[in-house]
Amino acid sequence: MRCAARAQIGSKAGRWTCILADRLTISLDGMGGDHAPDIVVRGAAVARERLPSAYFLFYGDETRLRPLIAQEPLLAGCSEIRHTDQAISNDDKPSMALRNGKQSSMRLAIDAVKSGEAACAVSAGNTGALMAMAMFGLRTLPGIDRPAISSFFPTLRGESCMLDLGANVDCNADNLVQFAVMGEVFARTVLGIAKPTIGLLNIGVEDMKGRDDVKAAANILRESTLPIEFEGFIEGDDITRGTVDVVVTDGFTGNVALKTAEGTSKLISTFMREAFQSSFLAKIGYLFASSAIKKLRLRLDPRRYNGAVFLGLNGIVVKSHGGTDAIGFANAIGVAADMSVHGFIDKMKADFESLQASPAELGEVVSK
Amino acid sequence: MRCAARAQIGSKAGRWTCILADRLTISLDGMGGDHAPDIVVRGAAVARERLPSAYFLFYGDETRLRPLIAQEPLLAGCSEIRHTDQAISNDDKPSMALRNGKQSSMRLAIDAVKSGEAACAVSAGNTGALMAMAMFGLRTLPGIDRPAISSFFPTLRGESCMLDLGANVDCNADNLVQFAVMGEVFARTVLGIAKPTIGLLNIGVEDMKGRDDVKAAANILRESTLPIEFEGFIEGDDITRGTVDVVVTDGFTGNVALKTAEGTSKLISTFMREAFQSSFLAKIGYLFASSAIKKLRLRLDPRRYNGAVFLGLNGIVVKSHGGTDAIGFANAIGVAADMSVHGFIDKMKADFESLQASPAELGEVVSK
Repeated sequence: MRCAARAQIGSKAGRWTCILADRLTISLDGMGGDHAPDIVVRGAAVARERLPSAYFLFYGDETRLRPLIAQEPLLAGCSEIRHTDQAISNDDKPSMALRNGKQSSMRLAIDAVKSGEAACAVSAGNTGALMAMAMFGLRTLPGIDRPAISSFFPTLRGESCMLDLGANVDCNADNLVQFAVMGEVFARTVLGIAKPTIGLLNIGVEDMKGRDDVKAAANILRESTLPIEFEGFIEGDDITRGTVDVVVTDGFTGNVALKTAEGTSKLISTFMREAFQSSFLAKIGYLFASSAIKKLRLRLDPRRYNGAVFLGLNGIVVKSHGGTDAIGFANAIGVAADMSVHGFIDKMKADFESLQASPAELGEVVSK
Repeated sequence: MRCAARAQIGSKAGRWTCILADRLTISLDGMGGDHAPDIVVRGAAVARERLPSAYFLFYGDETRLRPLIAQEPLLAGCSEIRHTDQAISNDDKPSMALRNGKQSSMRLAIDAVKSGEAACAVSAGNTGALMAMAMFGLRTLPGIDRPAISSFFPTLRGESCMLDLGANVDCNADNLVQFAVMGEVFARTVLGIAKPTIGLLNIGVEDMKGRDDVKAAANILRESTLPIEFEGFIEGDDITRGTVDVVVTDGFTGNVALKTAEGTSKLISTFMREAFQSSFLAKIGYLFASSAIKKLRLRLDPRRYNGAVFLGLNGIVVKSHGGTDAIGFANAIGVAADMSVHGFIDKMKADFESLQASPAELGEVVSK
């Protein structure tokens, strides 16, 4: 069953088909993001409409949160404020945030996941600080050396996900292999694909092409009996082509690729706007096609794909884009909810436990 | 003076403003590319219209080239066929091509540059083989350890160039610094920018972010007295924003970024086509706006930006996209012609000689 967690922007009818019988407690960093706490509260209200069993723990400044929550009838009876004066800013260094931010809204939201009070946490705050706190608070799952950041993006075939998007600037072959397994569970759980296909990002599809670490990771994945569908190397243009469901790469390349795609999308939007304003006839054409163009915009709307996940941790933490609005923040909540409802952490644990139960296999492949 | 070398696609009036007084001899790999020799001959004819002093040496199968050239009145009196039976295929490994392809059309075209008979060479053939042959035949300029591939792309501010696009999968700080200097000369020579700005591609703009080699390269560029405008780190979305004139990165990241941008552009074009076919009103809108949409397509047409240059060699070799048409191939010829006319190699030599004359400076910076 596919249970895509992102809201249908511009439409009342959501794509969140999960009917949640029990209460799903979600902790929110009320003070993280460029437009917090406003978008956090309004985003929770949008999300609540589609997640009837959601219960929110808002961490942050009570005097600012209370009046905002009072304005949202959907949040009545399903939200709680946990006051704290401390908040992490975008300028705070991760190490400083970790040391001095023990009572920050971000840290307390993560701690709620650690203690089991919340099923997942969402923050639009400082990415580095969030990653550091999540790693420190939740630790990585057994068998995983480093967590990775993953997110969805639109393709010609539908949607795919990519990892790592910036958590690790240097990755060795073992890291990439772990990312492949993590990404597979993520795509299976949240995109609902029974057998997600995996591709390793490279600068050519031939075996001899690319960096040594990428070639070594491909050898391990190709020759192992891991229960994953490894398709081999893919190139940059395969990302949006949807050649595979899961694109695996190091955090440096993944971050550059993601931002290059965002930049290219902005460039073309700007050129398009200029084209439709370039003549009287073009303006008339725009009026006739406005509904179709609006649909096109929605299809590429970055808010639809908001919600980057820290994979590999012993708990669910989702990072929202810092500059997003309520719709975007609601989608980040949706991703966190989907992962919780579909038992993402348990599936990850099971997969990595079975990998560890037969470590000989990976070792054997590596030594070849 | 700006002398942009790319043809105005879809328009008879070219952008090539160079008036060449003397004969400019250009050697062409007549057999390289998916649609060779057809696009090579027709591309040369398109280029000749804008480069009145161009004289072409066509290397390849005479029986195929002669009838094609006979069909192009513009090539009469300014072209010569140099027959050879041997051609490099896309499947040939670079090492094999280098060893066994000494009489190939590709190799002979490069040899013409080496001997000084031609000012530059253009090929749409096997990239790896072309790079290997160009390196072997022409060698790198003094002071340059590795050549890099560079190309132009459209930005919100006009045009920029990026290097390396795939020649070197691993780069150290020194390589990146050399790329910065090479790219600066390239942008100055072909884009005609008096003081091109340089950015190092990274996953954040803060000093502490990124891989060690990138940080080390930034330190060298920041603290050196090199006569270049180093702007520091840029991110993936800065590429199309046009934040800098020259984007410097390793060949792995650069190749992935370039292809990701191409893929994103294709995705949006497809979504746009689908949007304009989605309803009767949208189809009418398309009719009204068709002229504006055509202009938008031309603005993003990859043929406009065809022509990747091997920078750092002691000679000008330009690689055309293998699948391009005559217009695209003509643009690759235009890039080669512009570099030749504006004395690119001499400028590169002068810059790297002055760098070598004061090696203490770079060494000093590195040791800090």
